[in-house]
Amino acid sequence: MDTALTTATSRPHQPATAPIYQRLATHYRGAIQAGSLVVGDRMPSLRSLMRQHEVSLSTAMQLSRQLESEGWLEARPRSGYFVRRPLRNTLATVSEPRMDVTPDPAQYVGIHARVSDFIARGRLQMVKTNLAVARCAPELYPAEALKLAAMRVLRTHPQLLVSASSPRGNAVFRAVLAKRALSLGVTLSPDEVQVTNGCIEALNLALRAVAQPGDTIAVESPTFYGLLQVLEAQGLRALEIPTSPQTGISLDALEMAMQTYDNIKAVVVVPHLQNPLGSIMPDAHKQGLVQLCERQGIALIEDDTYSELVNESTRGDTPLRAMKSWDTTGNVIYCASLHKILAPGARVGWMTAGRWQARVEMLKFSQTRSNEELSQLALADYMASPAYDRHLRRLRSSLHVQRETTAQAIASYFPEGTRLNVPDGGLSLWVELPQKLSSRRVFDAALAQQILVTPGQMFSNSLRFDPYLRINCGWPQQQDVEQGLRRLGQIVTTLLETQAPT
Amino acid sequence: MDTALTTATSRPHQPATAPIYQRLATHYRGAIQAGSLVVGDRMPSLRSLMRQHEVSLSTAMQLSRQLESEGWLEARPRSGYFVRRPLRNTLATVSEPRMDVTPDPAQYVGIHARVSDFIARGRLQMVKTNLAVARCAPELYPAEALKLAAMRVLRTHPQLLVSASSPRGNAVFRAVLAKRALSLGVTLSPDEVQVTNGCIEALNLALRAVAQPGDTIAVESPTFYGLLQVLEAQGLRALEIPTSPQTGISLDALEMAMQTYDNIKAVVVVPHLQNPLGSIMPDAHKQGLVQLCERQGIALIEDDTYSELVNESTRGDTPLRAMKSWDTTGNVIYCASLHKILAPGARVGWMTAGRWQARVEMLKFSQTRSNEELSQLALADYMASPAYDRHLRRLRSSLHVQRETTAQAIASYFPEGTRLNVPDGGLSLWVELPQKLSSRRVFDAALAQQILVTPGQMFSNSLRFDPYLRINCGWPQQQDVEQGLRRLGQIVTTLLETQAPT
Repeated sequence: MDTALTTATSRPHQPATAPIYQRLATHYRGAIQAGSLVVGDRMPSLRSLMRQHEVSLSTAMQLSRQLESEGWLEARPRSGYFVRRPLRNTLATVSEPRMDVTPDPAQYVGIHARVSDFIARGRLQMVKTNLAVARCAPELYPAEALKLAAMRVLRTHPQLLVSASSPRGNAVFRAVLAKRALSLGVTLSPDEVQVTNGCIEALNLALRAVAQPGDTIAVESPTFYGLLQVLEAQGLRALEIPTSPQTGISLDALEMAMQTYDNIKAVVVVPHLQNPLGSIMPDAHKQGLVQLCERQGIALIEDDTYSELVNESTRGDTPLRAMKSWDTTGNVIYCASLHKILAPGARVGWMTAGRWQARVEMLKFSQTRSNEELSQLALADYMASPAYDRHLRRLRSSLHVQRETTAQAIASYFPEGTRLNVPDGGLSLWVELPQKLSSRRVFDAALAQQILVTPGQMFSNSLRFDPYLRINCGWPQQQDVEQGLRRLGQIVTTLLETQAPT
Repeated sequence: MDTALTTATSRPHQPATAPIYQRLATHYRGAIQAGSLVVGDRMPSLRSLMRQHEVSLSTAMQLSRQLESEGWLEARPRSGYFVRRPLRNTLATVSEPRMDVTPDPAQYVGIHARVSDFIARGRLQMVKTNLAVARCAPELYPAEALKLAAMRVLRTHPQLLVSASSPRGNAVFRAVLAKRALSLGVTLSPDEVQVTNGCIEALNLALRAVAQPGDTIAVESPTFYGLLQVLEAQGLRALEIPTSPQTGISLDALEMAMQTYDNIKAVVVVPHLQNPLGSIMPDAHKQGLVQLCERQGIALIEDDTYSELVNESTRGDTPLRAMKSWDTTGNVIYCASLHKILAPGARVGWMTAGRWQARVEMLKFSQTRSNEELSQLALADYMASPAYDRHLRRLRSSLHVQRETTAQAIASYFPEGTRLNVPDGGLSLWVELPQKLSSRRVFDAALAQQILVTPGQMFSNSLRFDPYLRINCGWPQQQDVEQGLRRLGQIVTTLLETQAPT
């Protein structure tokens, strides 16, 4: 087996700027996956790692611990580290969707009521382990640096809180966003950027710009309940398109739907780390989707909230290419947010709306006027510094470990037949329960034990995803999370035992 | 004439906490209005003011200057101050609306396009004197204190920018708002308060909660274009109800409209300092309106953005009573904002939605999720201190002077036949041009001279208010504002001379 560092660093997409132990981890992970190191093999000792790669003891230890935490290695007392097959790899991936289901545009189905009920029940009960919320722990974000940036902004702009803010957004901040959009393959002038209250307002504005109540909107199935709520609130009908846990929305199914229904006004897609599936669309699919929508004269709304959270081994040094980058006619509305990747306490998203830009600006003005400039300037200050990219690398790396350890726990504690999707990034896992067990029953039983999970029903107007759960892994694995997952596994096992076979 | 201070302080509504020179100013203003002091009378000398009221020289001078700036006194060299009738009182007040016009619900009329055109034209041209924007100068707000409050909040809540914010709003801030609502006659629990992105989001949520696209909403006529934009964006039809420049919306006309149209879903009213009229509804009207809407089963949406800006001589020590205070069935949705009265740089409004509270919460969640907590906490910190009421008194007093001097300039420079409403508070004046001169023509000619005004057309879907202008007086009178008003007067005069008599 080739353990030369040069091999590790020459991997495609491997950012040269990643810490050396991470580059080495990528290398050894690859070696295990490729079968160069097999289960039971002894990992090179710390001493030989140090010699072979010319690294310090602390780097060699970081490497080994990283791979151990991901489940690739196990430490044996007084013997060193040994390769093991991560348990989570013993689980099959989540089923691909059936393509022969003819989708049907849902009218008002009360997703609001379903979500309200869910939230209300979660509130009523003391919750000890929250595996439901798609958020990361505050400690994964640069609290201190952002706080200092905000204080700097207050000092340099003493009239900020008493001066009207710009409806389009702060100009300095828009310039930073436009500059970073280059790395997504999108060339923008700062004046084409509209700042919004999070990605959710961007999606609201995009839909209002292109559709009227009663129109149909094609969405991924499953999709995040926030989007279904927006559609319901706007009186739009959601047409759910089968979506692969691996490659995202099915273009074939979408094209068939476009031929069947003539009032589809837009397609809303999360190309990178789709919520809840975690799928990532291959470039060819993204390009194909842009062209399909253009041909059919249907707006394409891209929700790119998560692209910065894709693993570095997948994305390399730059984010994945946005669908917007293939847009030549202004038919793609691009929406994104800094809520999940930088500052959950700031309500800052943004969009660029192609040929609907003027309409979006007017709608934003009539709905919430403008965003506060303090947080925009504080984020701009931080994002313009090299600290931002360092933070993102740290965040991706933490999430990687958290996903792997969560997956490991699910593999250890959930019964046979459980299927699992561990995406190449992001903060949640999508679990398929054995024997079509209803996640609603799991939700009820878990809540009684103060564990909150998100049942699959929340992600569709249909009941198609009843045997699925979304499990958040945004929190560093702590004892109570580990225990919560263990109890959740027991709950699922018990429910299965008492359920009549399907 | 009775100049005893006791008289001044015993006036109804005169807050005991106002600075002494202001209390004296109220007294002498009253004496002039009552005819105790007549035009040409000499005002008591500074020396006799000091003796009579036992005040310092500086207080006596502040008093005289205040009355001079308001146009009640004029200084004659080496002779002291003499009473004059403020020129603005030579102008008739704005015409009352015709009640025999049958209102007709407007459908989409392109107010967006009208507003866009107006904004775009204002942007194209260099503007030197902006009399259009309904804002106050930043120096009228407590910039330094708010800045320090924000810094304190950042220090005491170091994780604020990286922790998710509450959809309903920060609990401390909601408690402050609920406490202050008591002075409006409204008893609320903090949990009945929903924080919003300014009053404009509150109105959006209120309308979405009670109406569907195609429904009719009764509004004051004229009303602020922001509301007409919201209605248009939501596909609602505005039914414009005649509104008195003195007492607000006509209850008779409204009741007639309710009998004529059966799909009116809500009435939106600004009871205090209506924009653009400046009217203030008498308590009996407010109560009558609440009861009328309740009887008819039509939601009443109260926009109370301006009540803190009512003159102290009118309101006394507490704000005017909110319509919500007469609501016994949850039929009134109360909306307000801190944007105009405390922090134009914070996008912070709030609402309490009666029986639509749960629906409003869900709509807020689906549209913008939550407000940032930093500004909420900074405002809560400031509002809980006595500095807040001191600021409001200063702001009201500054606006009083600015309105009077602006009115004085209009009376001096505008041609005969101009009619003017000088409201009992707020930051704008409503001017009726002579001979039905089109304000659109004034707008064009003024813009060519780098002066921006708001033409009456912006405040209605009809062209009924074409011969009206709204003039902002939120800026302390400076030379260029004075000059701008002089040139505006000349423009109106010139246009009148070239216009065929109507």
